[in-house]
Amino acid sequence: MVAPRLALVPGEPAGVGPELCVRLAQEPRDYLLTALGDAATLRAAAERLGLPLRLEPPGHPGTEPGTLALVEWPNAAAVTFGQPDPRNAHAVVGALLAAADGCLAGTFDGMVTGPVNKATINDGGIPYTGTTELLAGRAGCDVVMMLANDIVRVALATTHLPLRAVADAITPATLERVLRITHAAMRSDFGLVDPVIAVLGLNPHAGESGHLGREEIEVIEPVLAALRAEGMQLVGPLPADTAFLPGKLRGFDAVLAMYHDQGLPVLKYSGFERAVNLTLGLPYPRVAVDHGTAFDLAGTGRADPSSLFAAARTCAAIARRHPPRHRIPT
Amino acid sequence: MVAPRLALVPGEPAGVGPELCVRLAQEPRDYLLTALGDAATLRAAAERLGLPLRLEPPGHPGTEPGTLALVEWPNAAAVTFGQPDPRNAHAVVGALLAAADGCLAGTFDGMVTGPVNKATINDGGIPYTGTTELLAGRAGCDVVMMLANDIVRVALATTHLPLRAVADAITPATLERVLRITHAAMRSDFGLVDPVIAVLGLNPHAGESGHLGREEIEVIEPVLAALRAEGMQLVGPLPADTAFLPGKLRGFDAVLAMYHDQGLPVLKYSGFERAVNLTLGLPYPRVAVDHGTAFDLAGTGRADPSSLFAAARTCAAIARRHPPRHRIPT
Repeated sequence: MVAPRLALVPGEPAGVGPELCVRLAQEPRDYLLTALGDAATLRAAAERLGLPLRLEPPGHPGTEPGTLALVEWPNAAAVTFGQPDPRNAHAVVGALLAAADGCLAGTFDGMVTGPVNKATINDGGIPYTGTTELLAGRAGCDVVMMLANDIVRVALATTHLPLRAVADAITPATLERVLRITHAAMRSDFGLVDPVIAVLGLNPHAGESGHLGREEIEVIEPVLAALRAEGMQLVGPLPADTAFLPGKLRGFDAVLAMYHDQGLPVLKYSGFERAVNLTLGLPYPRVAVDHGTAFDLAGTGRADPSSLFAAARTCAAIARRHPPRHRIPT
Repeated sequence: MVAPRLALVPGEPAGVGPELCVRLAQEPRDYLLTALGDAATLRAAAERLGLPLRLEPPGHPGTEPGTLALVEWPNAAAVTFGQPDPRNAHAVVGALLAAADGCLAGTFDGMVTGPVNKATINDGGIPYTGTTELLAGRAGCDVVMMLANDIVRVALATTHLPLRAVADAITPATLERVLRITHAAMRSDFGLVDPVIAVLGLNPHAGESGHLGREEIEVIEPVLAALRAEGMQLVGPLPADTAFLPGKLRGFDAVLAMYHDQGLPVLKYSGFERAVNLTLGLPYPRVAVDHGTAFDLAGTGRADPSSLFAAARTCAAIARRHPPRHRIPT
């Protein structure tokens, strides 16, 4: 495959996204990178950091350090780092959707996104619950959120639900859909022919044979049995507290947690800086940073770019593996 | 203080408890150790391991490596390692209660316990939900379960509840009681004059200002505010996924998790072998291993004794700090 063409969306312009993109532009790369964002903001970030930035028109190969091809999505209001302005919400969401459409049309082979701020987008008059949901809607498909670092990949059966709503949300249909998407993505995105997925129980000790809850027996085990009969390698349901022991983790290609706070604390503890957020199930790879806008750091040059660097590397690696479903050969 | 006198209860005789106690007996120690258990089982474990074991009568100082003072609690049936026998349930529970009574009466300054098997005890006709609950009942007091290693101490607001019952169990009264016990124990047991306790939210992102659940606003925050007004240093409610970041953890003396699978995965990931289980709130220190009976390893000599060693060290350290509430000076 020729070098993958990645879309780069800085995200919230008043956060650390623009400066992280400037840092990424300095790195040697073996993929083509096209930013979708506001030229003035990127230039201001480069100036704050004292780093060179040469913006080139879309289509420019721009693999030299310091260079970025740019599709301009101009902000409506001038940006002050650290102070989000809802007037720029349309530029943020517009850039995300343009990158998504480019991926769907085959102009890009994947997209990498910086952090956005949900409240600012909502304040700007745009209904928005998250970029994962935005992209799923645009592509018209079901997706799974996965967070990954070099220690563990954690897929979530439910994401941002109040804890009291979690148990009822774990239905056979949801679980089957999430497992199918995760299994398929482990094969297509990570090149694992026969991936091993550990599935956590919903209850402590995975229900301890029904003494601490019956969802494992009534919901989770039947779904696992049906999918194992199709050939999937699924381990579990496992107690969450011991499934993450380092010796056990080495045997799993991914861990499916039933809910947010069951799966993410170990992921973030074990390597927050290098963690990325993947959207599985889209027809193209999308990898985001695993951190927020960090308004307190924006413009200071102190934000750690490791997560964006890891996101770009991961997205490029997946794009190289993907069959060029939408790609017009160049 | 003179050397603390610790009771040592091996726990389930067919599990790894006896051999771990034999290993502990080989270690140099600066506390007095009295086992409560079955002599033949301890001798059989020593023989399997090829280690010396000299059992001495109760009251023997026995600090030399290889020596254990023993209060005999004979098993009803001969022990085969790896095969639990419900006929021995009364000896197991009897030894636990005798150690508890000794601590309450001032004969011992603390107790260290190996792993027990709940099902075997129940099969032996004894109603039993856990040693923590057994000891709380015997002492007539409220307790808090805490798991700790050298990285983090995690207290649990709820322990072995089905996930769907957790949200309703987090009441102001429960939370206040748990925080008071934890705070007092941090002072008395760990010698922290003004401990900092991080309190996790119940919901993902600690509820995100009410968007993902309202328990933080309606239950947790008011309790924290009331206890802060008394002078407690309480941080939170914090999102569980980022509260455990190593840089943040270093600022906390303990983390209060709202439920089992929110708090324990990081604890076990970060140092399972060295983790111990403490019962806070008893009038004496009780420290247990943080692992089960491991029937598959029993009698093989391959079980890692680190957790029992850490439990004994921790119990001795707490006993040295404790005011001798029940202790008759010797």
